[in-house]
Amino acid sequence: MKSQTSGSYTIVLRLEIEQNVAFIEIANAIHEAGGEITAVDIVNSGKLLTTRDITVSVSNSENEAALIESVRNVAGVKVVNFSDRTFLMHLGGKLEIQSKVPIKNRDDLSHVYTPGVARVCMALHHDPAKAYSLTIKRNTVAVVTDGTAVLGLGDIGPIASMPVMEGKAMLFKEMAGIDSFPICLNTKNTEEIIQIVKSIAPVFGGINLEDISSPRCFEIEERLKQELDIPVFHDDQHGTAVVMLAGLINALKIVNKRMEDIKVVFSGIGAAGVACTKMLMAAGVKHIVGATRSVGILHRGENYSNPIFQWYADHSNPDNVTGTLSDAMLDADVFIGLSGPNVISVEDLKKMAPDPIVFAMANPNPEILPEVAEPYVRVMATGRSDYPNQLNNVLCFPGIFRGALDCQATAINEKMKLAAAYGIASIVQDDERNEQYIIPSVFNNRIVEVVRKKVIEAAIETGVARKIPHEFV
Amino acid sequence: MKSQTSGSYTIVLRLEIEQNVAFIEIANAIHEAGGEITAVDIVNSGKLLTTRDITVSVSNSENEAALIESVRNVAGVKVVNFSDRTFLMHLGGKLEIQSKVPIKNRDDLSHVYTPGVARVCMALHHDPAKAYSLTIKRNTVAVVTDGTAVLGLGDIGPIASMPVMEGKAMLFKEMAGIDSFPICLNTKNTEEIIQIVKSIAPVFGGINLEDISSPRCFEIEERLKQELDIPVFHDDQHGTAVVMLAGLINALKIVNKRMEDIKVVFSGIGAAGVACTKMLMAAGVKHIVGATRSVGILHRGENYSNPIFQWYADHSNPDNVTGTLSDAMLDADVFIGLSGPNVISVEDLKKMAPDPIVFAMANPNPEILPEVAEPYVRVMATGRSDYPNQLNNVLCFPGIFRGALDCQATAINEKMKLAAAYGIASIVQDDERNEQYIIPSVFNNRIVEVVRKKVIEAAIETGVARKIPHEFV
Repeated sequence: MKSQTSGSYTIVLRLEIEQNVAFIEIANAIHEAGGEITAVDIVNSGKLLTTRDITVSVSNSENEAALIESVRNVAGVKVVNFSDRTFLMHLGGKLEIQSKVPIKNRDDLSHVYTPGVARVCMALHHDPAKAYSLTIKRNTVAVVTDGTAVLGLGDIGPIASMPVMEGKAMLFKEMAGIDSFPICLNTKNTEEIIQIVKSIAPVFGGINLEDISSPRCFEIEERLKQELDIPVFHDDQHGTAVVMLAGLINALKIVNKRMEDIKVVFSGIGAAGVACTKMLMAAGVKHIVGATRSVGILHRGENYSNPIFQWYADHSNPDNVTGTLSDAMLDADVFIGLSGPNVISVEDLKKMAPDPIVFAMANPNPEILPEVAEPYVRVMATGRSDYPNQLNNVLCFPGIFRGALDCQATAINEKMKLAAAYGIASIVQDDERNEQYIIPSVFNNRIVEVVRKKVIEAAIETGVARKIPHEFV
Repeated sequence: MKSQTSGSYTIVLRLEIEQNVAFIEIANAIHEAGGEITAVDIVNSGKLLTTRDITVSVSNSENEAALIESVRNVAGVKVVNFSDRTFLMHLGGKLEIQSKVPIKNRDDLSHVYTPGVARVCMALHHDPAKAYSLTIKRNTVAVVTDGTAVLGLGDIGPIASMPVMEGKAMLFKEMAGIDSFPICLNTKNTEEIIQIVKSIAPVFGGINLEDISSPRCFEIEERLKQELDIPVFHDDQHGTAVVMLAGLINALKIVNKRMEDIKVVFSGIGAAGVACTKMLMAAGVKHIVGATRSVGILHRGENYSNPIFQWYADHSNPDNVTGTLSDAMLDADVFIGLSGPNVISVEDLKKMAPDPIVFAMANPNPEILPEVAEPYVRVMATGRSDYPNQLNNVLCFPGIFRGALDCQATAINEKMKLAAAYGIASIVQDDERNEQYIIPSVFNNRIVEVVRKKVIEAAIETGVARKIPHEFV
């Protein structure tokens, strides 16, 4: 089995080294503890002591502890401190706010603040729609979370969620030039969250909901979509669904099957699973079966206490089959996993229809490991960067919001999401597409531009664009 | 009477001019309509038409309309569009959000976002105090308003307030390097505002309340101070009070009087008036009398329906005098106006004690115009930039928050505000101080540094500093 490189990271050791110590002693101590030296710097060199920063790659935190202990045991060496590169990159936070106009003198001040600003305020008071030209609204998105479902870490709270939300805001900026600010809420109350987001909405051109646990995320998103006139987008649901569909569009081209004809089995019926299911239905898929570890295949004739399961049973499984996830796999063309590690086996893959497509998207550990599944599947994708075909939300949210903001959309609707998925899929050209390349890299610099264009076209077509950008007139 | 230059502004006219038109015709049309040409640019020059941008200074909006009409009447000239510089500076908003760390490749992404970010999240989950080192919290302030008392414009709502809040955030950044973000709330409900600010607080190291109307601003600030562990500062109250005190400290040096001995008369008992009164009390002033146009001098023995008036009557006016504001002026050493234009007259000034000090701070039109008051007062200050001694909150809030953030203060208390006032006053050296110079310019680059230092010292002394910056150890 392949080692999990996604767990490895870099630490920097600052050492005070007496002059009689040979560097090889330190290098050996690091090597024996499983570390790999990647850089050495001299910070300070004195008569008695030399201070060095040694950058070391380690595979996990136990490894790190052992390594530091090992270096401490070298006579004549003192570990002054150690910090890892990930933590160093977080020092002081990852975002800053800048003025777009300098204030160098009284004249500048009189234009951007009192007294000049009063005329701009009154222009907005008379016509609030001018907020899209005279304020930051047109390029600003709130990244809103309550910290209840952060990555795979669960309910870690608003403070602990901040590095993710800051990272998300960085990606909005770096990928799509969007100004985005983290709103990390110290409440889990659905009504309070709805009311807070409604209250803070004037400043924003869009709301990205993030890492809010199911089923509250559904009601929060639905209500906000109804009650606000700016796009509200729960990325964990819809970003995942758009990227999944983009991958499937290209995977089906490889196996030469049509959306209308395939049978798709879902494992994991949470927020993302439901959104992916709805996305596939919108794309024309007729035959979907969902299963969970706790209740098996969702089917009519059963009463589910979870209203999401009930909805799913009522809207899928046309043949009304029953049983376990493993039973559902019979003759399936596509498996989509949004659950947890190791829920399907090689035996399950063998039951699938010819040319099986497996999207094992559980993070960080997929439903079945690619190296295990490989001999039995035609196309495989995961959420991980260390295997081919990474299905990553970063492919979707920057471009979809760029498009929505640029046409001052009132919503991000199904047509816009479908358009985004087809846009992402189109980046992979016909002559490039193969089993290992169904989805572009997140660093492909055409993605945002293509997704933006498709999204704006769909927004105009569905009547949710308040502004037609000049190149679409 | 001096003309109000604070009303003047600059517009840019874009004109299409036929080749047979002499520029002097246009120049005359502008001049006759009261405009002053400050710049001329050629945008485009063709065989039949020349396009020019003409920058013109105008004194008010009626003037602007007449000027554009006048230019339109020149045969062979077409006004393509016109826009004024203040509006141009607001296009697209005045703030942007930047990543502090670039994301150029998969390795960067893995440190600032998944999977690396998960370890930073868990470090915060185990020790939320690390938010001050690993997130934007330590340098980030919310500028919170409900848009109910914006400048002198009143209740114009959250959208219309945005240019002011963005301007405030710019000043935080430009003056003190503080990252600040506008939270403009679409609710006026006191409890909702309190709950919202508490809920969004995790991201912020401080809360600047702005332009929230009285008396709700008192309860909102009080409750938030009690219920949050970060500084909450209503700038309209306390920023004004700190700057007023700074000016008074220096004015008293000129007239050689002591805080303990002076009689101070206030006109206008709103949020700022109460805060200024409390600030003076904290600075040692014993004899304060407050008056309003509606109820006259506030005194004991009367029942006031406004609880603020009742508090004032109970805590001021040691001689329990009654009557009008004009009656209160008898033998006053200092007049402080936070009310409206023309509430005091030359006759009132003549009643004051020798060497009268008048701070007529109503904006944009002071309680008495300096050119009217000048012969009868020793020291005069206003809130305006076009007279000497401008009492401007920009002197206070950047430095006071810089200090509070740098020591991770849990509050901005009375001692810290007093220290800030003495800090601002100290910028004006003994040999510089005179009747026309009691308060430094907002562009004096020593202010933030001096205020920060004084505020941190006071925070440490009063036990509200969670961190002692190394230069204070």
